[in-house]
Amino acid sequence: MNAEKIPDVIIARLPVYLRALQRMSDSGVKTTSSKELGDHVGISAAQIRKDISQFGEFGKQGTGYSIPYLMDKLREILKVDRLWDVIIVGAGDMGHALARYQGFVNRGFVVSMIFDNDPTKIGQQIGSLVVENARLMTEKIRQNNIKVAMLTIPAAAAQEVTDQLVEAGVKAILNYAPISLNVPDDVKVQYIDPATHLQRMTYYL
Amino acid sequence: MNAEKIPDVIIARLPVYLRALQRMSDSGVKTTSSKELGDHVGISAAQIRKDISQFGEFGKQGTGYSIPYLMDKLREILKVDRLWDVIIVGAGDMGHALARYQGFVNRGFVVSMIFDNDPTKIGQQIGSLVVENARLMTEKIRQNNIKVAMLTIPAAAAQEVTDQLVEAGVKAILNYAPISLNVPDDVKVQYIDPATHLQRMTYYL
Repeated sequence: MNAEKIPDVIIARLPVYLRALQRMSDSGVKTTSSKELGDHVGISAAQIRKDISQFGEFGKQGTGYSIPYLMDKLREILKVDRLWDVIIVGAGDMGHALARYQGFVNRGFVVSMIFDNDPTKIGQQIGSLVVENARLMTEKIRQNNIKVAMLTIPAAAAQEVTDQLVEAGVKAILNYAPISLNVPDDVKVQYIDPATHLQRMTYYL
Repeated sequence: MNAEKIPDVIIARLPVYLRALQRMSDSGVKTTSSKELGDHVGISAAQIRKDISQFGEFGKQGTGYSIPYLMDKLREILKVDRLWDVIIVGAGDMGHALARYQGFVNRGFVVSMIFDNDPTKIGQQIGSLVVENARLMTEKIRQNNIKVAMLTIPAAAAQEVTDQLVEAGVKAILNYAPISLNVPDDVKVQYIDPATHLQRMTYYL
C-alpha cells in the first residue's frame, strides 16, 4: 500500500470517524457497524467501509468493528498515536481561546507555547502558558523540533510569519488568519475562517 | 442555469476567491486574471475559470476580470450582498472570541445576539453585545427571523440545542462543538474543530 495515493478527501474524513468512535467509546460501547458509525457522522455505510478498507481489513463481516481496535488503527494512520507539540502564534482573542481549549486532550496535540510581538501581551499568563516574545519563535521552534503551528494573527502579517515558521521547520499550519498562504509543497495548511464557512452555507439559503 | 446542480466543492471555493479579491481591492487593484487570482489562492487558473464560468461570463479574454464586478457577482451568488444576522450560542472562550471577531465586517454577517444558560454569564457584556438567557433563544430567533447560528457549546449539549435551533427556523449552523450533528436536509452545517483539522495534516508528516 502506498499511503501517498490515498485521496485527501478520504484522509479528511478519518478524523471525523475517530471523533465519533471516541464518543461511542466514552459512553461504554465496544463494537460498532459501518451503518451505526455512518448514522453518527452523516456518511453512508458503504462510503465508510470503502474509506476504511483503503488501509486494511479492520472489521469482520457480521460482527462489525471493535471500537478500541479501529481507534488504535485510525490514530496510527493519522499519526496521532503520539503527542505533537503545537505552538500558537498570536495571543489575541482567538489565541487565548485556543490556548485554553480543552478539545485537544486525547487527540494527539498539546499546546506547548504561545507567541506574540505585542509588549503588552508578552509575559501574560494564559492557563498554564506564558506568552513569549515572537522574536524567540524560530529559535524555540528549532530547539523543540516543533512541526505544528496555529496562526491567529492579522491577515497582513500572516504570510511573513508563515515564511518564518516554514524556515524554522514547521510542516503543518492551522491558519485562522483570513488569507490564503503560500507554502512549499511539503508544508500543509488548513484554513479556519468563520466568515468563509458561513458564506459556504448562505449560498443554499 | 439550475443553481442546485453546481457541485458543493465549487461553492466552497467561491468564498476563498471573494476573500482574495477583497484583499486585492483593498490594495487598490482594479482588474485581475485567473492566473493572478490563482496564485493568490493556490488554485490553478484553469480551475478558477471553470468554477467562475459555472455562473456566467464575468471576464473578458485578454483583459481578465474587473475586480469590483466579479466581487459583486460572487457576493450575489453567495447571497452575501445582504447582511445576515447571526447568533452565537455559548458564551465561553470561543463564543467570546467570535463575538469580538472583526473578520465578519464587509463579508455579509453581523453577530446580533449571544446566548448562554450559565447564570454567571447571562448579562455579561461582550463588545456591544450582552449575553442573553438561552431560555429566550428560540423566541428571539423566531421574532428576528434568524437563519444563521454559530454553536460554541460542549459536545454533550450540541445535538439538543441544534434541534431547538432547527425547530425555531435556523437553516445554517457553524458548529464549533466537536461532534457531528444530525439535521434535516434543508439545514446546512459547517464544522470547525481545530483538533480534526490538525489530524488532517499529521497524516502527511
